[in-house]
Amino acid sequence: MKKRRKLGRGVAIVGAGMSKFGMFKDKDSKDLFAEAFLELQDSVDKGIDPNEIDALYLGNFSNDFFMHQSHWGPIISDLIGMTPKPATRTEGACASSALAFREGIFAIASGFYDMVLVGGLEEMSKRTTEEVAEGLALATVPYEGQAGFTFPGVFGAIATAYFAKYGANREHLMNVTIKSHNNAPLNPKAQYPLTVRDIMQAKLKSAEKKGLPVPDWSDEKAFLKDPRVNPMVAWPMHLFDCCPISDGASCMLLVAEEIARNFTDDPIHVLGIGQGSGRGLHACDDLTYFEATRFAAQEAYGMSGLTPDDVQFAEVHDCFSIAELLHIEDLGFFKPGEGYKAVADGLTRLDGPKPINTSGGLKCKGHPVGATGVSQLYEVWTQLRGKAGKRQVSIKDLHIGGAHNLGGTGGTCTFTILGRR
Amino acid sequence: MKKRRKLGRGVAIVGAGMSKFGMFKDKDSKDLFAEAFLELQDSVDKGIDPNEIDALYLGNFSNDFFMHQSHWGPIISDLIGMTPKPATRTEGACASSALAFREGIFAIASGFYDMVLVGGLEEMSKRTTEEVAEGLALATVPYEGQAGFTFPGVFGAIATAYFAKYGANREHLMNVTIKSHNNAPLNPKAQYPLTVRDIMQAKLKSAEKKGLPVPDWSDEKAFLKDPRVNPMVAWPMHLFDCCPISDGASCMLLVAEEIARNFTDDPIHVLGIGQGSGRGLHACDDLTYFEATRFAAQEAYGMSGLTPDDVQFAEVHDCFSIAELLHIEDLGFFKPGEGYKAVADGLTRLDGPKPINTSGGLKCKGHPVGATGVSQLYEVWTQLRGKAGKRQVSIKDLHIGGAHNLGGTGGTCTFTILGRR
Repeated sequence: MKKRRKLGRGVAIVGAGMSKFGMFKDKDSKDLFAEAFLELQDSVDKGIDPNEIDALYLGNFSNDFFMHQSHWGPIISDLIGMTPKPATRTEGACASSALAFREGIFAIASGFYDMVLVGGLEEMSKRTTEEVAEGLALATVPYEGQAGFTFPGVFGAIATAYFAKYGANREHLMNVTIKSHNNAPLNPKAQYPLTVRDIMQAKLKSAEKKGLPVPDWSDEKAFLKDPRVNPMVAWPMHLFDCCPISDGASCMLLVAEEIARNFTDDPIHVLGIGQGSGRGLHACDDLTYFEATRFAAQEAYGMSGLTPDDVQFAEVHDCFSIAELLHIEDLGFFKPGEGYKAVADGLTRLDGPKPINTSGGLKCKGHPVGATGVSQLYEVWTQLRGKAGKRQVSIKDLHIGGAHNLGGTGGTCTFTILGRR
Repeated sequence: MKKRRKLGRGVAIVGAGMSKFGMFKDKDSKDLFAEAFLELQDSVDKGIDPNEIDALYLGNFSNDFFMHQSHWGPIISDLIGMTPKPATRTEGACASSALAFREGIFAIASGFYDMVLVGGLEEMSKRTTEEVAEGLALATVPYEGQAGFTFPGVFGAIATAYFAKYGANREHLMNVTIKSHNNAPLNPKAQYPLTVRDIMQAKLKSAEKKGLPVPDWSDEKAFLKDPRVNPMVAWPMHLFDCCPISDGASCMLLVAEEIARNFTDDPIHVLGIGQGSGRGLHACDDLTYFEATRFAAQEAYGMSGLTPDDVQFAEVHDCFSIAELLHIEDLGFFKPGEGYKAVADGLTRLDGPKPINTSGGLKCKGHPVGATGVSQLYEVWTQLRGKAGKRQVSIKDLHIGGAHNLGGTGGTCTFTILGRR
């Protein structure tokens, strides 16, 4: 019988912010974190005095590699005037800031602190695509990256296994991509706020204008099947199956539950947390699920006493379209092998019964790896508070959402359930 | 009035291990961690079942840079058979594993976990000295490293300021070095288990054997003043003022206080923890102290209700000889400007009233940066349990010790007080 884990003291979120995600020649990591932190300060309904913040946890994957600078805790602590208070960096590849969020929770639940700032950042676009691919490969297990396996290759292998086992095909991946792109224009922070149809129509208009032969794309899928616009990266991963290279920062203000109402009349509570670790593809008996995600989900459901059905919407880690399919199954939203059918049936659309990646997901919102985990929680928080504007989920009595973050090739996975008590 | 911080649940140490520190051509990070973990298992008086460990926190500075591999949490979790349980990497430059220790404490104190493994590792010696210097400079703040300031330069500037303010000189640094070297041969894990006198006599013997002119070194200081054996690195830092390049790993087993006696009749308790962040040298009003260390010390003393006089011995971060002088003042063991006199008077010797760096310190034990923080705590734990062999502190009623870790140029500082209740 699995032990049900609990925190000795509840934790609530009273503010959050994120920078616009994108590729910014003229902004560095500090600019981006400042942008996020300024929004956070404005987001606290009853205001905060930043001097009351006790500690900082900051997720960063490898600005070591990307920007030749590590030790970002004190740099950000200095930026926002927090020194000499403590600042700790966490790293779990693309799940780095989900770990920062989790450590912030433990620090408050332990009784040591009452108010903790958590966040993440990454600055990737100053490097070439090849360098970014090399940098990201640092997060694979040695049997993968050092053997030449890059991330599109890893997820291509996973997709092939999923196709073989469950009978899905490339069109099912396209459904994920099209769905995420439909959400993105509704998110002002998204790196690519364009639907696939928008992109297609822009290409058609451009061809017409230039007097070139106008392609005969009957619909979005025909467009995505055209290798001129959607070339293969690593079968069956094509360009539109892959998230972009991004810069960005995100942050969130956590407080002990008993003081949450000093800051807002609408605190969002941490109902469940879970984290798991994985061994890498070489050690998997089956490539169609992530054991670490399943473990994290079990922990979060166990702590919260909730079931997958109780989670009304979620952000899940769609570094590649296939990842979204695996995760919505691993989190229990759909049965194994049923995820791709659910997406095909529109169940995960913004207006569906289980909206997934309302933000546009990593695919369209962008994926500055160290910032992603907290940016997912930002989206869930924003939706729960009914402040997601045009992309607001319309589910009645919206009160519980989830965020799932994956690092490496399943090396670090987290699942967090937020909601109202 | 500063708030006194407390943990909602006490935490105790019931086991610890560390690899030998050194430069190992034939051992990698996993070999080293395995060495430490095997010792840890043997060190638990009543034994443990590793399957009972709930989570892992692992400090690593930048194997990203040194070994082209990040995301070490799951690699080590896999190594010791812990997957799919969570594994989190912390980074705070040379204080990386002190942060892992701290997060392990919070995770238990929060009530979420009962038994957490914490540790650290770094693998540096496969890179050239120039590359290591470049890698370490990633941990300075951007105004320093990116401007060409390396660590010996930073601590050279600090030493110069200390000399100017307090009237110390190079011989006072030598006292620190000679003292640490006197302890090192008593530590079987030390990278350089030799006294300065040993090294001097070996050089004399070698000269004699080769028929070369035999140097006229009247004592250890004369030896250290000879630029042929102790060349300048960055004034007044000479070779013997600087810690070496090292590989190594360390780990420690933390449990909730109420279950500690299931594992040992002699648990060592976490009495006080503190952590601070700093802005870098450009922002200091005075280079002769570290604000982050003072802040960390205040927190640890505040939590424990203890004073500097209560801490009977300590490991402090002597990346450079001058650092030890600053820290023993910042921690309150000696008044500002009095540290160098205390060392000259022998007060910090193994048989003195306030032994400092009984392990030989970073200087002689070695400094695999991510492993150092927990290795310091390992030394304190070993001493408190009376198991330090030939280097055992002989103070009567030994029951409280401290460990101080510094990352970067004071960007991250921690102070931890361990003891018996």
